[in-house]
Amino acid sequence: MHGFEHRHTVRAALAWLDAQLRVLEAEAIPTSAAAGRVLVLPVISDVDVPGFDRSTMDGYAVRADAIEGAASYNQVPLRVVGDAMPGTPFTRTIAPGEAVRIMTGAPIPAGSDAVLPAEWVDADPQAPDRVVALSPVSPGRNIGRRGEDITRGTALLDAGRILRPQDLGVISSIGQASVDVVRRPRVRLVITGNELLPAGSTPRDFQITDANGPMLAALAERDGAIVEFPGLVRDEADAILAALNADADVVIVSGGSSVGIEDLAPNLLATHGELAVHGIAMRPSSPTGLGRLGRRLVFLLPGNPVSCLCAYDFFAGPAIRLLGGRSADWPYRRVRARVAKKIVSDIGRVDYARVRLTAAGVEPVATSGASILSSTTRADGVLVIPKESEGYAPGDDVTVYLYD
Amino acid sequence: MHGFEHRHTVRAALAWLDAQLRVLEAEAIPTSAAAGRVLVLPVISDVDVPGFDRSTMDGYAVRADAIEGAASYNQVPLRVVGDAMPGTPFTRTIAPGEAVRIMTGAPIPAGSDAVLPAEWVDADPQAPDRVVALSPVSPGRNIGRRGEDITRGTALLDAGRILRPQDLGVISSIGQASVDVVRRPRVRLVITGNELLPAGSTPRDFQITDANGPMLAALAERDGAIVEFPGLVRDEADAILAALNADADVVIVSGGSSVGIEDLAPNLLATHGELAVHGIAMRPSSPTGLGRLGRRLVFLLPGNPVSCLCAYDFFAGPAIRLLGGRSADWPYRRVRARVAKKIVSDIGRVDYARVRLTAAGVEPVATSGASILSSTTRADGVLVIPKESEGYAPGDDVTVYLYD
Repeated sequence: MHGFEHRHTVRAALAWLDAQLRVLEAEAIPTSAAAGRVLVLPVISDVDVPGFDRSTMDGYAVRADAIEGAASYNQVPLRVVGDAMPGTPFTRTIAPGEAVRIMTGAPIPAGSDAVLPAEWVDADPQAPDRVVALSPVSPGRNIGRRGEDITRGTALLDAGRILRPQDLGVISSIGQASVDVVRRPRVRLVITGNELLPAGSTPRDFQITDANGPMLAALAERDGAIVEFPGLVRDEADAILAALNADADVVIVSGGSSVGIEDLAPNLLATHGELAVHGIAMRPSSPTGLGRLGRRLVFLLPGNPVSCLCAYDFFAGPAIRLLGGRSADWPYRRVRARVAKKIVSDIGRVDYARVRLTAAGVEPVATSGASILSSTTRADGVLVIPKESEGYAPGDDVTVYLYD
Repeated sequence: MHGFEHRHTVRAALAWLDAQLRVLEAEAIPTSAAAGRVLVLPVISDVDVPGFDRSTMDGYAVRADAIEGAASYNQVPLRVVGDAMPGTPFTRTIAPGEAVRIMTGAPIPAGSDAVLPAEWVDADPQAPDRVVALSPVSPGRNIGRRGEDITRGTALLDAGRILRPQDLGVISSIGQASVDVVRRPRVRLVITGNELLPAGSTPRDFQITDANGPMLAALAERDGAIVEFPGLVRDEADAILAALNADADVVIVSGGSSVGIEDLAPNLLATHGELAVHGIAMRPSSPTGLGRLGRRLVFLLPGNPVSCLCAYDFFAGPAIRLLGGRSADWPYRRVRARVAKKIVSDIGRVDYARVRLTAAGVEPVATSGASILSSTTRADGVLVIPKESEGYAPGDDVTVYLYD
């Protein structure tokens, strides 16, 4: 029932964590399902897109030299010998004086070298197959060349890229129906605490209802994980040890992470694996532990919901994102803002201060402790106060991470 | 094969669209699945959290008046009469001179009014059930009061809020296993074009491979939609009309949206429903149509992939987000930056200019047209040039929407 003998610095804890992390291996998934996933290899096209010269206008495919000098006062007659539609080419070679009615996207007929836009042509009322050119057109005009979008051999997307919707379009268009992306980290949640009722149960008697399970599941999914959360785990060594041995890349334990008599997980991890970090100079979430069990990274997060969120943001979240090939940076938008009301901290520890962003500036969310999860729903974001700082005074410029 | 007689302004098109849009009705879903969804009603707690007074420290629950004046030179003996653990209260009322060993989160025993932290207590080596207090403690100290996190009747989250991970924790903790959120818009994709091969097919002969289907699906899912995309639709009136009549809130047609002979969708929509807007003064994507068929909103987007993306960003995306209770604002991060290379536009139309953001500033992505989807993967983002502008010169400050 006594405190930690030694607290690690946040920096030392992150350094240990960083040394454990390797990006997970690749998996091939359908291109259509790859939005937001992380590319493992560059995407290189082995085809030209388009694979043929095509019209970029609705008009008439012609030989440019045949209508040199055409004008409204010098109308040049053309014989319309057919149509070219997207996907349905005109198959014969056209001669000088001939034209093919062509639509945007249709293949350019052999023998033609330009497309005369429809508005530069008049129909010949005497003969439906005849038109007159009212303007010349330069060779090559209104033709999109084979490979103009994508040239065979071009590296289109770099490894490590988080795929955008339009990237899926490009990958699909070059005939790649599947794509190699970083496998999603598998995260097992181990929510402990004999005082807990399953999330969504009405709290009663001396029990409280689990908040951390749904919160951690949503956080880890946001960060790209596949989450396994089969329900609460009793504060019993066998049950916790079995859960720690889950088939997962990451195990996140919530609750029982401190040094009290009911705090089983740290001892289990130290005995069966490695408890590398236990106790961190920060507030909240100083009773956080980091370690390994076999190939699993294990996070022992405090049961207090704010501490749990804070320790997730500092440690588990960056690790999950790095495993999945993403940035360790916090996924919250950063804004610079001015402090409106004093925000205090102690030298020697890092503070995770929930703040509001009002018209006046940054204000702390008044709260009496780490158990007040509603402080994180009332807050607009969080301010990280470094361990060298006593906090901020009105007028100071600070960086706030916005939750939304 | 001739152009639009009249082009609507972007503003007029958006005004028509805005008048069509009502937020969809609510649906109840499990709280654990509600991250990122939009609340329909405020969340109000009908319980206190916690539902009892609890310890915020590991230590000893005592009557404060019984250890007044305690100090290391004035040690006050206490008899330890039991333990209080989270979920396992000490059930009898304690008397002055008695103490209960208590853990963080455990209910405060009747008769006690403060928790003396473990470090202010020494064990009495003569008797295991005896300790001595080395310090006084103020009444109420180290006690978290019933309802300190959430008080019954408090409105915790406002209607319209996009739920955060911690919000799921709060909702779960007050016993709400389900939550009323805005139903996700159902979007049917109708990708037409006889020249098209299904996404991921190797392009061959005079065919090109669909890029718009996977791109639009990913865009609409990003914006909260449930997407139905059963495959390509032939450029035939019956097939397109059947697809337009899909059971959906929104139908997005790609291809055949212009005024050419193969452009069936606009006529079908005008005949069977309402074609309210057709032809918009913008580049690319001027051949965009907007209309209704029964309760469905219908978007006719150009088949050229960049035009398709542009028209999605301007019209379909905001509509889908508004139907789902979200903001119409573009979901791209905005940055102010300085133009490094001249970006030209024509007065009278809105331009969707793909740009790179280099160390030198904003530069246009060199491209010859709307069919070059790879221009949107090479680009860092997009610059919207209003219709009153001829473009920007080096040194101008502009707002860029970043794709990532």
